Amino acid sequence: MATIGRVTERPASPRPVLGFLTDFGSDSAAAICRGVILSIARDAQIVDIDHAVRKFAIGDGAFLLWAALPWLPVGVHLGIVDPGVGTARRPVGLRVARGDVLIGPDNGLLMPVADRLGGIVEARLLENRELMLDQLSSTFHGRDVFAPVAAHLASGVPFERVGPAVAVSDLTALSMPEATREDGSLIAEIVYVDSFGNVRLGARPSDLPGGSDPGHVAVSLLQGGLVRPLPPMRAARTFGEVAVGAALLYEDSNGLLAIGVNQGSAATVLGLATGDRLRITPRGG
Amino acid sequence: MATIGRVTERPASPRPVLGFLTDFGSDSAAAICRGVILSIARDAQIVDIDHAVRKFAIGDGAFLLWAALPWLPVGVHLGIVDPGVGTARRPVGLRVARGDVLIGPDNGLLMPVADRLGGIVEARLLENRELMLDQLSSTFHGRDVFAPVAAHLASGVPFERVGPAVAVSDLTALSMPEATREDGSLIAEIVYVDSFGNVRLGARPSDLPGGSDPGHVAVSLLQGGLVRPLPPMRAARTFGEVAVGAALLYEDSNGLLAIGVNQGSAATVLGLATGDRLRITPRGG
Amino acid sequence: MATIGRVTERPASPRPVLGFLTDFGSDSAAAICRGVILSIARDAQIVDIDHAVRKFAIGDGAFLLWAALPWLPVGVHLGIVDPGVGTARRPVGLRVARGDVLIGPDNGLLMPVADRLGGIVEARLLENRELMLDQLSSTFHGRDVFAPVAAHLASGVPFERVGPAVAVSDLTALSMPEATREDGSLIAEIVYVDSFGNVRLGARPSDLPGGSDPGHVAVSLLQGGLVRPLPPMRAARTFGEVAVGAALLYEDSNGLLAIGVNQGSAATVLGLATGDRLRITPRGG
Repeated sequence: MATIGRVTERPASPRPVLGFLTDFGSDSAAAICRGVILSIARDAQIVDIDHAVRKFAIGDGAFLLWAALPWLPVGVHLGIVDPGVGTARRPVGLRVARGDVLIGPDNGLLMPVADRLGGIVEARLLENRELMLDQLSSTFHGRDVFAPVAAHLASGVPFERVGPAVAVSDLTALSMPEATREDGSLIAEIVYVDSFGNVRLGARPSDLPGGSDPGHVAVSLLQGGLVRPLPPMRAARTFGEVAVGAALLYEDSNGLLAIGVNQGSAATVLGLATGDRLRITPRGG
Repeated sequence: MATIGRVTERPASPRPVLGFLTDFGSDSAAAICRGVILSIARDAQIVDIDHAVRKFAIGDGAFLLWAALPWLPVGVHLGIVDPGVGTARRPVGLRVARGDVLIGPDNGLLMPVADRLGGIVEARLLENRELMLDQLSSTFHGRDVFAPVAAHLASGVPFERVGPAVAVSDLTALSMPEATREDGSLIAEIVYVDSFGNVRLGARPSDLPGGSDPGHVAVSLLQGGLVRPLPPMRAARTFGEVAVGAALLYEDSNGLLAIGVNQGSAATVLGLATGDRLRITPRGG
Repeated sequence: MATIGRVTERPASPRPVLGFLTDFGSDSAAAICRGVILSIARDAQIVDIDHAVRKFAIGDGAFLLWAALPWLPVGVHLGIVDPGVGTARRPVGLRVARGDVLIGPDNGLLMPVADRLGGIVEARLLENRELMLDQLSSTFHGRDVFAPVAAHLASGVPFERVGPAVAVSDLTALSMPEATREDGSLIAEIVYVDSFGNVRLGARPSDLPGGSDPGHVAVSLLQGGLVRPLPPMRAARTFGEVAVGAALLYEDSNGLLAIGVNQGSAATVLGLATGDRLRITPRGG
């Protein structure tokens, strides 16, 4: 029988945790979901992850969930970046190996973090109308479908009650981009630009040719057939190791390669954006 | 005798809910109010509705409270958009039919949602200094008056202790704009632009001449004597029914007519703002 | 023996309060810290103070903590504006006379509020690796050091366990700028611009030559050797006492002198920014 992480496995815990990420921005939409959740699961401990995700940016939302959920207690977590709301895209619930249940649209948003939490153990479509609000709008499934289903699960409703099982291979796939090697260089994609302007790459230090401590690197932006060189930069462990305003290649707190500027915005200074492809070539000490 | 919603009617509930909306923006002002509330009602469950309300925009705040509070549990709710702080405008508390108490300035902010929650059962001026902080500043009644009074109510202080009753007819009126018909068209006002740029109208589908499912519509912006036609658009149920970048007329999650752009901002693309008046004319399938 | 405010002194209190301020902005970084805190201190009541502090602006963060923490219940509070993360700057904990413990980097951020909460009773370096996460990144001490140490303290770990005592004179100093008098004028520095655009000064009404109720004032901006006069303005108690769009000198809710514009932004209208020095000369009724 399915059990839901903390709720059924750790009965001493007084309040089920519910992580919550959307692209709703400021407005009352996130608060309306909070209200629906608390009306069903009065003791839910809602942990807001981010509601300022770039509008409709499923990849950004997927990155932020991937970065955040491993640090939250096991719970029922809600992710909503849903440009296809009201269309044929399906609402899903994913039970993962760590014990969490992830609730959201089947558009890939939940897939990278599901993988990071040990992989999907059981996937189900959200079809049980008894766990949703009575009236379903066509533009706000956060309020009408996702929030109430998550709240019922947080209250102890067994996961199999949400709806029929679906094969993982039937879900919309989305994975973090992987780096490749090419002629002694690393080719990596920018997967996220954080609020400081640091540029996070879909690559790890161990992907670098010649070892994870390259000294200096040459970095170029690849745009179609064009190659735009960036200023040379040091590989460093902390921002403080380079001058204020200088760029550095570093290992971010997720273990990813990243490019930053000490007390500045790498994205602005270097003209970089999510989805850009970079070539990184170690130059030595 | 007055009772306060959940607090006295549902004694098993462990934590009184306190919805909280302001135009304080980022800064510590909302946190200071949270601190005051928790210092008085340590178990209050504060539900932040929005603190990024457009500065001094009483109408925006009123819309957001109207949209959000019906979805929150019954509680003591705090709304502060208060350009007249420190002047003769009065602080008020409104007990509504659903059982909530609404706390804020008497400038209309609380009136539409009071109506939506069943209407005002009892209105009182906040005059009991014992329920306020010892020192009253002239610019931060959120901290000194509204937050502590709300927290005392959430802790179980009876509503009649806040101050003398006031007639509802003595309160500053504010109601959602109503739509009118004119020569087979609907004239409606934009009551709110949400964070996606969707334009919410003071009208419902049933207000449309010729029925709530008009097929296509012609929409014009009325500015003084001028009429600026917008691109023709479909009436649709979901954003996904129109092309990316195309406009649609839809029923929003509040049951209001709204204009959106699929994966875009209707306000930006169409040049619309709160307070604008639109003429909507059904054109058929 | 050290005790930690509410946690050990008031055992009946069900949930330890944890105030939390950062310059992390939107992103999942603050949520990751929340997750770490709740994984250690599941019943912590996290009170978000502000996460939109201007990037790297230690002075802004210091002002906001100074303004907010006196209004929060006694607790373990976390302040992170940390441009020197990963370098030699030290992580510290400050126990203050009111009973709180303040956790953050030793860069001055915590010093003004420590003073306002009665002064530092005991300062310690955060060096006990048992209270931190197993892996320390070099760029995210919020997650790896500050959040877990604060959470352990909130759970009842005695303060002396965080690491060795350090003399207060060894800490990085930071104090609110003080006003001076010059030829019948007050010279004061702008210490913060709030989200309304109100300009808060490092001066109090009692600092004004000729008494705290000056009637009208002449104000000039001092830039190097240049003096730029601002429009003359009234000293007033509330914004509503001057016309919409007019400037006023007032006493803010912290007891500081401030310059505002009724329903506008003084910083924008008058061209003022944090760090600017003003000369204020009373002109009488």
